[in-house]
Amino acid sequence: MKYPSKILEQVVDSFSGLPGIGKKSALRIVLYLAQNPHQKSKKIVDSISRMTEELKICKECFSYSDFDICEICSNPSRDRSIICVVESIRDLMAIEDTQQFRGRYHILNGLISPLDGIGPDRLNIDVLVERIKSSEIQELIMAIRPSIEGDTTVYYINRQVESLPVKISLIARGISFGSELEYADEFTLGRSISERIPYQRHRA
Amino acid sequence: MKYPSKILEQVVDSFSGLPGIGKKSALRIVLYLAQNPHQKSKKIVDSISRMTEELKICKECFSYSDFDICEICSNPSRDRSIICVVESIRDLMAIEDTQQFRGRYHILNGLISPLDGIGPDRLNIDVLVERIKSSEIQELIMAIRPSIEGDTTVYYINRQVESLPVKISLIARGISFGSELEYADEFTLGRSISERIPYQRHRA
Repeated sequence: MKYPSKILEQVVDSFSGLPGIGKKSALRIVLYLAQNPHQKSKKIVDSISRMTEELKICKECFSYSDFDICEICSNPSRDRSIICVVESIRDLMAIEDTQQFRGRYHILNGLISPLDGIGPDRLNIDVLVERIKSSEIQELIMAIRPSIEGDTTVYYINRQVESLPVKISLIARGISFGSELEYADEFTLGRSISERIPYQRHRA
Repeated sequence: MKYPSKILEQVVDSFSGLPGIGKKSALRIVLYLAQNPHQKSKKIVDSISRMTEELKICKECFSYSDFDICEICSNPSRDRSIICVVESIRDLMAIEDTQQFRGRYHILNGLISPLDGIGPDRLNIDVLVERIKSSEIQELIMAIRPSIEGDTTVYYINRQVESLPVKISLIARGISFGSELEYADEFTLGRSISERIPYQRHRA
């Protein structure tokens, strides 16, 4: 594609390659920025600059944070005895949005994947073990997506904490609310039957 | 959605609302930037800053440009007698990519659309008329998309230049290369028959 302006081309280049953004969508975004008042561009420039300079990683759970210890870890009303182990900060945010969990988190920053060259040493697993050893943690909830990598990671962590007095649980797997049974994969559907839960009967 | 960091939230806010980008894709992009070396972020920040400070609009054709007069308008090998009138810079780029046009352009910056409150005075039409009056332009090619707004705009420009010695042509409309006749809209298919072109027979 020929650009009428090198300056324009450079902005398009800097946007294309971001997740979900190819050349055409980058061009659309850049022309939008060029056509609109500079405030929108300034907001992007300022906020990214601030992020590269000031964004921290929580020393406890490895979430992104504005402080050395994140708001969840430093919140005294969160249960310190239970840790939810997640792959990424997006999973943390998804779980926070459910408002069903009042403990704290531990972000692994990926899953063990030998094919991609990601071994346990690349993930925040050692520090998780240290965290369990050095505090009053009683339960780890493994909120890890069901997959070969996920199962491997759960298995590995389980081995690391075997000798420690901590309970390990997995998030429940089953049919999602609103989904059609016929479209569920066999494994999930099978598990949803073998791990069925009692129906709460309302009696008169 | 609850963000673990205000800094992160601000970057997501600044991205969401860009064309084609909602909250979820903005978050994906921002986490990608946060996780990757700062170079990628710096490239975006630097190129946008440069664009807001240095990007110019060509005084002749109203394309974006690095100079007061764009590279196409200032190129002595481009035909100065023919102007291709387009709605936007994206249409200019699409036509340039075909390498079928060696004249110059005029960007209207939109189409007449009374429903959206866009009258002719909001577009670069007066300057187009001045451009024709003050130079040796012999033909206007209206490369405007077929639509109510497009046809209205073409009609309006035609009225403005009625008394001037300039030929007006429209880009050909018909069936696209590779498309199925059965899926073409009736109007296009009808026009492709009534405005059929002679077949070039190769004789031995």
